Amino acid sequence: MTVKISQTPEVQTFFQEVAGVDNDQGSPRFKQIILRVLQDAARLIEDLEITDDEFWKAVDYLNRMGTNQEAGLLVAGLGIEHFLDLLQDAKDAQAGLAGGTPRTIEGPLYVAGAPLSQGEARMDDGTDPGTPMYLHGRVFDERGNPLAGAIVDVWHASTHGTYSYFDPSQSAFNLRRRIVTDDQGRYRARSIVPSGYGCPPGGTTQEVLNHLGRHGQRPAHIHFFISAAGQRHLTTQINFNGDEYLWDDFAYATRDGLIGTLNFVDDADAAKARGLEGKRFADLEFNFQLQAAESADSEARSQRPRALQEG
Amino acid sequence: MTVKISQTPEVQTFFQEVAGVDNDQGSPRFKQIILRVLQDAARLIEDLEITDDEFWKAVDYLNRMGTNQEAGLLVAGLGIEHFLDLLQDAKDAQAGLAGGTPRTIEGPLYVAGAPLSQGEARMDDGTDPGTPMYLHGRVFDERGNPLAGAIVDVWHASTHGTYSYFDPSQSAFNLRRRIVTDDQGRYRARSIVPSGYGCPPGGTTQEVLNHLGRHGQRPAHIHFFISAAGQRHLTTQINFNGDEYLWDDFAYATRDGLIGTLNFVDDADAAKARGLEGKRFADLEFNFQLQAAESADSEARSQRPRALQEG
Repeated sequence: MTVKISQTPEVQTFFQEVAGVDNDQGSPRFKQIILRVLQDAARLIEDLEITDDEFWKAVDYLNRMGTNQEAGLLVAGLGIEHFLDLLQDAKDAQAGLAGGTPRTIEGPLYVAGAPLSQGEARMDDGTDPGTPMYLHGRVFDERGNPLAGAIVDVWHASTHGTYSYFDPSQSAFNLRRRIVTDDQGRYRARSIVPSGYGCPPGGTTQEVLNHLGRHGQRPAHIHFFISAAGQRHLTTQINFNGDEYLWDDFAYATRDGLIGTLNFVDDADAAKARGLEGKRFADLEFNFQLQAAESADSEARSQRPRALQEG
Repeated sequence: MTVKISQTPEVQTFFQEVAGVDNDQGSPRFKQIILRVLQDAARLIEDLEITDDEFWKAVDYLNRMGTNQEAGLLVAGLGIEHFLDLLQDAKDAQAGLAGGTPRTIEGPLYVAGAPLSQGEARMDDGTDPGTPMYLHGRVFDERGNPLAGAIVDVWHASTHGTYSYFDPSQSAFNLRRRIVTDDQGRYRARSIVPSGYGCPPGGTTQEVLNHLGRHGQRPAHIHFFISAAGQRHLTTQINFNGDEYLWDDFAYATRDGLIGTLNFVDDADAAKARGLEGKRFADLEFNFQLQAAESADSEARSQRPRALQEG
């Protein structure tokens, strides 16, 4: 018979002591969370009869995961980041907040401090041989009025599926820009068509996915933070029609309303008119609609700790 | 009203997909554990209304904890390692396994491969100015018969409360030895009286303890693995009577039956007879009693990943 002690008064009292519930120092909120974590962990260990070897493998895993800085990648791969979006959607529905461009996960690869420009930007440093991509669109409020002065903070992967800063072979802020919309709410960027992202093959996230019988691939995508005075901050991404992994994203970020179409153009004259050397480029239009901010807090993104590169 | 979605069929199905329950690759056991972790995490997020900022602070914490290699220290400080001992005690009681020296936590600072010697060993390298300590005792089986050829694998901290290997200022295997008992089951070691251990003040474990209003101190202690053919492996520690932190260990390892007495001797002649320069030394006797192994598996310690130093 399975032996269980976690619900005994002795063990519950022990966990309360561990969580510091009875002392008057520290943080009551933190204590509440830790107490719950202890209770849940003990139940899990008992219910699943976790062996010592399994427990210590997990502890060792946490050390290796942190050394790799992959905690953010794991919570994406385990769908917890997507669950937070689903939960926020449900909270919004209950609060009567609806409409606008859907949110989806941020992922762990944002870097703060990207160059800011007015209306348009070149995002790539010219070294990536990817297909030139003209990304453009408009930002609207919930009534459909264009939002001038909105900030479109956009970042995406290279044709190797890697991100500047985290991939030290790329120049600073390559494929990362902040663009202020013009008086018509327009933003325009020239970049290169990104490739999909794959988890580092020897990393700790892929190790978990292997045990789960899952791949670690994402469809090609472009990340956005969209913000404007009086508007609710939007964290989102877009994917592309026709991508092999469009609905098979290991991070579960793909959502209806967030799928764009890359219109490839093979036309030497048109390319030349844009100053391109080849004849092929892609046009991608994507518009955003923000909800009105219900409070000043909601105008800002979460305070998630993020990488910061000085410009 | 609190919004909850984690128990909806849609979210439960999503978690099953994430955990790979429906595919035939990977590890069924691993999938079972991850599915439970996801269900517990989602419930915790909902029940305690975890904010985005709290969630991402926790993710960031895991990266920092792993970078510091402090996961093993945290599970000790959160009492989970002690809970595993309590649970094993309860399993033993149900199985009718009783008697012998009590187990207690291993802690994260063992290093495999320490020098092996017959009957006795000098553990310190002569550089620590601590009080010389003569540690000795016998290893018995459950009937009280001495066990010849048992291995007493012993490790403890310096007078700075730090451990060789993890403290690079100490020589290799300082204060770490494996001693084979003689035909009377005896082991003898000369070392120095250890100081208590404190969590690294700027580390991630102390950070949690601060939020819980707790200190990160341990009483002085000596770690042991005791093993012998046909006997159940014992992982334990002893503390010392009179220690300020004897019953206030941040890792909750102190147990009845594991408290030794340091007998300090101030006698220049006795010290000289032992080849000591000063006049003060300590004598510490501690005997161990092992249970008979119920299976070959139980003769070995857990397969917890451990540091290994080549001798």
